[in-house]
Amino acid sequence: MRMEITLAKSLDRLKKIDAELQKLAHISALLSWDQETFMPDEAVGERAEQLALLEGIMHDRFTSSEAGELLGSLGVGKDTPTGSDDFNDNERAFLREFYRRYRRKTQLPRRLVTEMARQTAIARKEWAKARAESNFSIFAPHLDKILALTLEVAECLGYEDSPYDPLLDEYEPWMKTSKLEEIFRNFQEKLMELISRIVNSEKRIDTHFLMQEYDTNVQRDFSLHVLKTIGYDFSKGRLDVSAHPFTTTLGCSDVRLTTRYNRNYFNTGIFGTIHEGGHALYELGISAELQDTLLADGTSMGIHESQSRMWENIIGRSLPFWKHFFPGLKSRFPEALGDVDLVSFYRAINAVQPSLIRVEADEVTYNLHILLRFNLEKRLISGDLKVKDMPEAWNEECRSLLGIVPPNDADGVLQDIHWSMGSIGYFPTYSLGNLYSAQFFKALEQDLPDIDGSIEIGDFQEILKWLRQKIHSPGRVYPAGELCERVTGESLNPDYFMDYLENKYSDIYGI
Amino acid sequence: MRMEITLAKSLDRLKKIDAELQKLAHISALLSWDQETFMPDEAVGERAEQLALLEGIMHDRFTSSEAGELLGSLGVGKDTPTGSDDFNDNERAFLREFYRRYRRKTQLPRRLVTEMARQTAIARKEWAKARAESNFSIFAPHLDKILALTLEVAECLGYEDSPYDPLLDEYEPWMKTSKLEEIFRNFQEKLMELISRIVNSEKRIDTHFLMQEYDTNVQRDFSLHVLKTIGYDFSKGRLDVSAHPFTTTLGCSDVRLTTRYNRNYFNTGIFGTIHEGGHALYELGISAELQDTLLADGTSMGIHESQSRMWENIIGRSLPFWKHFFPGLKSRFPEALGDVDLVSFYRAINAVQPSLIRVEADEVTYNLHILLRFNLEKRLISGDLKVKDMPEAWNEECRSLLGIVPPNDADGVLQDIHWSMGSIGYFPTYSLGNLYSAQFFKALEQDLPDIDGSIEIGDFQEILKWLRQKIHSPGRVYPAGELCERVTGESLNPDYFMDYLENKYSDIYGI
Repeated sequence: MRMEITLAKSLDRLKKIDAELQKLAHISALLSWDQETFMPDEAVGERAEQLALLEGIMHDRFTSSEAGELLGSLGVGKDTPTGSDDFNDNERAFLREFYRRYRRKTQLPRRLVTEMARQTAIARKEWAKARAESNFSIFAPHLDKILALTLEVAECLGYEDSPYDPLLDEYEPWMKTSKLEEIFRNFQEKLMELISRIVNSEKRIDTHFLMQEYDTNVQRDFSLHVLKTIGYDFSKGRLDVSAHPFTTTLGCSDVRLTTRYNRNYFNTGIFGTIHEGGHALYELGISAELQDTLLADGTSMGIHESQSRMWENIIGRSLPFWKHFFPGLKSRFPEALGDVDLVSFYRAINAVQPSLIRVEADEVTYNLHILLRFNLEKRLISGDLKVKDMPEAWNEECRSLLGIVPPNDADGVLQDIHWSMGSIGYFPTYSLGNLYSAQFFKALEQDLPDIDGSIEIGDFQEILKWLRQKIHSPGRVYPAGELCERVTGESLNPDYFMDYLENKYSDIYGI
Repeated sequence: MRMEITLAKSLDRLKKIDAELQKLAHISALLSWDQETFMPDEAVGERAEQLALLEGIMHDRFTSSEAGELLGSLGVGKDTPTGSDDFNDNERAFLREFYRRYRRKTQLPRRLVTEMARQTAIARKEWAKARAESNFSIFAPHLDKILALTLEVAECLGYEDSPYDPLLDEYEPWMKTSKLEEIFRNFQEKLMELISRIVNSEKRIDTHFLMQEYDTNVQRDFSLHVLKTIGYDFSKGRLDVSAHPFTTTLGCSDVRLTTRYNRNYFNTGIFGTIHEGGHALYELGISAELQDTLLADGTSMGIHESQSRMWENIIGRSLPFWKHFFPGLKSRFPEALGDVDLVSFYRAINAVQPSLIRVEADEVTYNLHILLRFNLEKRLISGDLKVKDMPEAWNEECRSLLGIVPPNDADGVLQDIHWSMGSIGYFPTYSLGNLYSAQFFKALEQDLPDIDGSIEIGDFQEILKWLRQKIHSPGRVYPAGELCERVTGESLNPDYFMDYLENKYSDIYGI
C-alpha cells in the first residue's frame, strides 16, 4: 500500500515536470513560427538568443537530478524502460518515452550539444552561400565538422549494429538501419522497374496549363476552402505563408500550418497546403487525455509523413478528390483552366518525370531521391565515403537511380538544407511515410468501401473519423511498428505502396 | 583590490540574471502579442497557462536567494539603493531599478500575488458581462475583492503618507500622491476655465466628413505611410490590427504596434497608429548599450505616454503635419475628402466637446476623464468611498467636471477595463503624459526653432534625433522627475500644457 502511494506520487511529479516541458516546447514553437512568418528582419539575432535560453531551461529541467531520481524510484531503467507492471498502457508509454528522451539528453555531454548548435548555425549560412555559388568546397569543411560531431553523438548514444541506428532513431524511434535496408532493397528494384515502364510509355501528358498565371490571393482563398472542407478547424489553427512550408504545434488547440504560393505554378501552393494540412490533422486528432504530455505528439516522423502524404497524394491527387474540387477551382481560374477538362487536369497533377530537385519531384520518383540520400548518408557514417568526394558520389547515384546528372552542385548535392542542420538520419522517414500511407489507406478502404463516393461529394468526415480513431488519437502511445500492426494487421510492407502506384499509373500512362 | 574584483563579479552575475529575465519578458510579450493579433480562438486557455508558467519562472529567478545575496554583497539595501559609490551612473541606475523590482516582488507574499491573478481573471470576465448588461451590481462584488487585495498590496509594500503612493509607484516610480494632487489642483481649475470658454464660444466645427466611408485597407496603407515618414523602422517592427491598440517590445530590435480601423470614423485608425508609433519610437530609441537590461525600458508610464501623446496630438494634430500629409490623404479618399480644405480638416480633427467615453475624448477634455478617475480611486483607497456607491459618485463627478451625466453605467463607471485588472494607480499617468509632452515639446522648439518648417515638408529626422538624444536613449537611467529637469531645466509644470492648449484652441475657436 505504502509502495503504491509512493509510486503514484512519483509518477504525478514526473508528469508535472513533463507538462512544464511541453508548455516550454510550445512556447519555443511559437518563437520559431513567428520567426518564419511575421518577425521583423532585424530581430533574428535576439530571437536566436531567446530560443537558446528556452532550450537551456528545458535541458536543465529534463536532465535535473529530480527527474533521474523519480525515474529510479519508479523502477525505470535500461532493462525496464516502462517501469513497474502496475502501470496502465498510457502510463507505461509515458515512462518509456520520458526515459527515452531522458537517456538521449543525459548521454550527450553539454559540450557536444553546444558545439553542434554552434557548428550547425555556422554551417547553415555557409551552406546557403555554397548553394548560391554552386560551390561545394565552401560547405565541405563545415559538413566535415558536423559529420565528426554526428559520429561522436552516435558513439555517446551507443548502438549494437550500426552507428546509423541511433541517428535514425532520433526521427524514427525503434527503427533499425538493417530493417530499413531490408524494406528499401526490394522496394527500390520494383520502383525503378515501374518508372522505366512509365518513362518508356508512349503517353505524353500535357502540363502546360499548370504553369499559367495563378493569382496568389485566389490560391490562398482556394487553399482555405480545401482545408476547411477536409476538416481542418480554423478555431484551432491558421494558414500563413513562409519560405518553406511547415506545421507546428503551439498547444493541443493551436496547430498552425504554412504554405507558399507560386504565381506561375499551381501545384506548389495547393499540394503544400494539403500536405501540411495532413500533418496538422494528425496533431489536432490526438486524444485530449494525452494533452500536455509528451505522448501528445506524432509517434514517429515516418507516421507523421504518412498522414501528410496520404492527404497530399493518395487523396489530394486522386480523381474523386478533383471531381469535387475542380469545378470550384475552374471558376476561380477561368483563364488558366477554362479549356481544361477534369481528366486532363488529373493527369497533369500526376505527371511522372525523373528530375533533379527532390521537393519538386512527383510521388513516384520522389522515393529515388530519398534512396539516393539514404545510401550516401550510410556511406558517410560508415567512413566509406569522404565529404570531399560527395559531389561525385551524388552524381553517380543520381545517374544510376534517376538516369540524369545535375549540371551543377546547387541542383545536386547542395540542394537540401538538412545536412547543414546536422539532420543525418532524417531523409528515410519521407519514404517511410509513403510506404505507411498506402498500407494505412488500404486498411481504410477495407473498413470504408465507398470512400471514393464520399470524396466525390466532398465528404471527408468518415476518413477523418477513421484516421483519428486508428492513428491520430493514440499519439505516441504505440511505437510506429506496433501502430502499423494494430491498424493494418501486419508490419510495414512496401508492396501496398507499389500496388497503389501500379494501379494509379497503369491507368494514367496506359501501361 | 580584492574587494573590487568581488564587486565586479557580483555585478556581472546580477546583470546575467537580469539579462535572462529580460529575455523571458520578451518571450512573454510575444505570447501576449500573438494572443491579441493572430492566435486562434480555442488556444486562449493554453496560452494563459503558458504565460503563467513564464511568470512563475521569472518570479522564481527574481526572488531567488542568489539575487538577494548578490544585492547584499553589492551593498544594496533600503538605505543604499544604488550600492557602492564606485559604480558609474548606469550601474547605479541598474542597481536602483533591480533593487526596486526585487523589493516589490519579495515584499508581496506568493499567496497574495496568486490570489490577485485569480480574482482579476474572474473580474475581467464579470466586468465584460456587467458592461454588456450595463449592470454595476454584477461587477461590484469582484471589485470589492480586488480593492481588498489592492489595499493588502499597499500595506505589504509600505508607505509614508498615503496607501495610494505604492500603487501609483508601480506605474510612475518615485511619484507621490501629494505631489500629484498639487500638480493637478491648479491644472484642473485652469482646464475647466478653458473648456468653458470653448463650449461657450460661437464657433461650431463641422466634423461630418470624418464619419464618411473610409476603406480600411486604404487606411492601413496610409497608416504605414505615416509611420514610415515619421521614422518608424519596419525592419524592427510591424503594424497589425487588434481590438485595443497597443505597443509591445519583443527585443531591442523588435517593437511592434497595433491599431484598429473604423470604417466610418477616420480618427480611430490614424491617431491610434500615431499614438502607438510614439510609444514604439521611444522603445526603439533606447541606447544599444542598455540592451537586455532592465534599463532598456521607458522610465515611467507618464514619460512613455508623453511620447505617444506628443506624436499623436502636438505633432499629429498640428497644422504643419497635415500641410504635409493632407494631399496624400485626400487622394486616397477622394469621395470623403474631395471637397474638404486643409483648415477645415485641421479644425475637425481638433474639435472639442465634453463627452462620456474617455477613449473617444479630445485632447482637452480627456484630462477631466482622468481627474474623475483619480479622485474616485483615492477615495476608494482611503475608505471614504464604498464600491457599492461608485455609480453615484461617478455620475456626480462627471456632472461636476464635464457637465454631463451618463445615461447608464456601461457608458459611465463600467467603461474602462483597468479596475477589473487591478490597475489602480494607472490612470493619472495618462494626464502626466500630456503635461510632460507639452513641457518637452517647448524645450524641443527652443532647440529647433524652425521645426514647423521641417514638419511641413515631412522631415521628422531632427525631431526624432532630438527626442532620442534627450529622452529615448537613456531609457530608465533617470527617473521621470530627473529626466524632466535634465531635458527642460525645471520640474514638471502644467503651465506648458495649458499654454499649448490656449495657443492652439484660441486660434481654432476664436476665443
